[in-house]
Amino acid sequence: MPDVQHHPATGDDAAMRRALALALHGPRGVNPQVGAVILSPAGEILSEGWHRGAGTPHAEVDALTTLGAQHGPDAARGATAVVTLEPCNHTGRTGPCAEALIEAGVARVVYAADDPGALSGGGAARLRAAGIEVVAGLRGDEGRALLDSWLTVQRLGRPHVTAKWAQSLDGRAAASDGTSQWITGPAARADVHRRRADADAIVVGTGTLLTDDPALTARRPDGSLYDAQPRPVVIGTRAVPQEAAVRRHPRPFLQDEGEDLPDLLDRLRELGAHRVFVEGGPTLASSFLRAGLVDELLVYVAPTLLGGDRLALGDIGVPTIDAQRRLDVRDVERLGDDLLVVATPRQARKSEEGD
Amino acid sequence: MPDVQHHPATGDDAAMRRALALALHGPRGVNPQVGAVILSPAGEILSEGWHRGAGTPHAEVDALTTLGAQHGPDAARGATAVVTLEPCNHTGRTGPCAEALIEAGVARVVYAADDPGALSGGGAARLRAAGIEVVAGLRGDEGRALLDSWLTVQRLGRPHVTAKWAQSLDGRAAASDGTSQWITGPAARADVHRRRADADAIVVGTGTLLTDDPALTARRPDGSLYDAQPRPVVIGTRAVPQEAAVRRHPRPFLQDEGEDLPDLLDRLRELGAHRVFVEGGPTLASSFLRAGLVDELLVYVAPTLLGGDRLALGDIGVPTIDAQRRLDVRDVERLGDDLLVVATPRQARKSEEGD
Repeated sequence: MPDVQHHPATGDDAAMRRALALALHGPRGVNPQVGAVILSPAGEILSEGWHRGAGTPHAEVDALTTLGAQHGPDAARGATAVVTLEPCNHTGRTGPCAEALIEAGVARVVYAADDPGALSGGGAARLRAAGIEVVAGLRGDEGRALLDSWLTVQRLGRPHVTAKWAQSLDGRAAASDGTSQWITGPAARADVHRRRADADAIVVGTGTLLTDDPALTARRPDGSLYDAQPRPVVIGTRAVPQEAAVRRHPRPFLQDEGEDLPDLLDRLRELGAHRVFVEGGPTLASSFLRAGLVDELLVYVAPTLLGGDRLALGDIGVPTIDAQRRLDVRDVERLGDDLLVVATPRQARKSEEGD
Repeated sequence: MPDVQHHPATGDDAAMRRALALALHGPRGVNPQVGAVILSPAGEILSEGWHRGAGTPHAEVDALTTLGAQHGPDAARGATAVVTLEPCNHTGRTGPCAEALIEAGVARVVYAADDPGALSGGGAARLRAAGIEVVAGLRGDEGRALLDSWLTVQRLGRPHVTAKWAQSLDGRAAASDGTSQWITGPAARADVHRRRADADAIVVGTGTLLTDDPALTARRPDGSLYDAQPRPVVIGTRAVPQEAAVRRHPRPFLQDEGEDLPDLLDRLRELGAHRVFVEGGPTLASSFLRAGLVDELLVYVAPTLLGGDRLALGDIGVPTIDAQRRLDVRDVERLGDDLLVVATPRQARKSEEGD
């Protein structure tokens, strides 16, 4: 039998993995999900915390408070705070976390994702100015992934937009006569529904609404509704029929002319939407792409060829190859017979990383 | 240290793997590549053989001959012959292998791929009728893969056709103004060239020829030519310019009007082509697909969106969804930033497996 050793001390990396897991205890919504761990100078975990939503203490303050309640006000002196998001430098409904960490006497702060907020950012600089060692970007990708929609809202001042469509390998949405039933299989459709349940709003054009009469609910394979349902948004001027399935959606639909997509997204953000799912059809997806308002693409590719003129994507404003919309492929999944290509516009990533 | 044991005896499976490797010693061309191993009743390898091309002994006879020369005419009595292709039952330039195995007194025959030839097939039945135990289909997929193009020629009476194109994720070959330089990256282009070197003929339309002036050679990344070069075939009635790069190809090009694609493939087969690579452009690929003459698709998908009307595939004769050309995705590879989707028409597979 191997000799089992106990390692009560943990490194920054293991602590960050723990903080990332803690963050998920917090609610998704107007505020980001953040986790924090306080390590002793010897590397033992002294306390843990996470952010429980707007108006409640931030993760690092939560962890400091727990520690202080158990071991007194000096318990964090010389400690390392490991946080998934740069500590804020902003007095909102809670005080600035940078100040709290300085007051608690921590010696080091390790964080994953930078805080890009105009008001809340600058915590790292504040900490360094107070003589605290700051390590930025540990598991930065994971920290950013966790904060994806919240960071986009902070950065762009609008919700995170996912455009989803299904197409044949040759880029068609339907056969020449418009028929398209069951291009993709059950695994792909189940995946769409799971992702719908993660969205705050689901947007379709009236063309798709009148043709397909979609329910726009997020359903499990057995047909039951997920607990979370995206709010349906119908784009276009044509009336939604009285018998339309969307009228039976658990959340009331919103209709918009679609003349000003940035303004629509502003209003959706004001309604609390961080993640918007643009579902169809080709005209709507093309409009969002042409306007540069897509942060993530989910392209479900059915292993079939259709030819003809029913394209999954129309004019997206690319007159010449220099204007092509390059993508970064984040993932390629096999879903039954289908492929899912998850991609992000390259430009969006550059602006995220380059500044 | 573990106790190392020697196993001079080998099982059917190991012998078949050896036979598959031996097959590759033979030339690719008019005859199939086949390998064979003779095992003693105790499972030792007694001899090995492979097919060296038209007019030379088949693999199992090659192995029997070697064995007989070394150990006399009775050396194969009670032995097992392991062959990658069903022994033939056909007197051609060589005698039927089934008879040779019966006369040699082998007790068992194990083979990978069935011989679907109208004249050469039936060897397994002949062996069984002679009281020999026959095991069919061991590593059948590998045996068929080895014989892919040859089997297609036997089954369809025409060369194996691969259609290759590059497209954006949304199925475009170029931007609206026709520009398309560097849609796919160097890894994808290197892959195309490697596969070109495996083809006996490479087919392009005059449209592509006049627009892109392709060399139609199979080149290594450093620009040097592979040893094997596919014969260029130009489809269309427009003249090939005197300065066209294809005129500097190491093999003379063939021009065809493209009015009768089955007839063209017949003539290519008569010229010894087993593998035909259809490279472009959209019109030609669509014509081969519409005619049901494509056995394999290589779709190089660049992570980019183009929109517009320069489609990688045109009308392939699918008026309604029931007529869609379903594919079986055999492989999805990441090549640099690009994806390669390798697929086969589902119908073709059914006819291969279903009868």
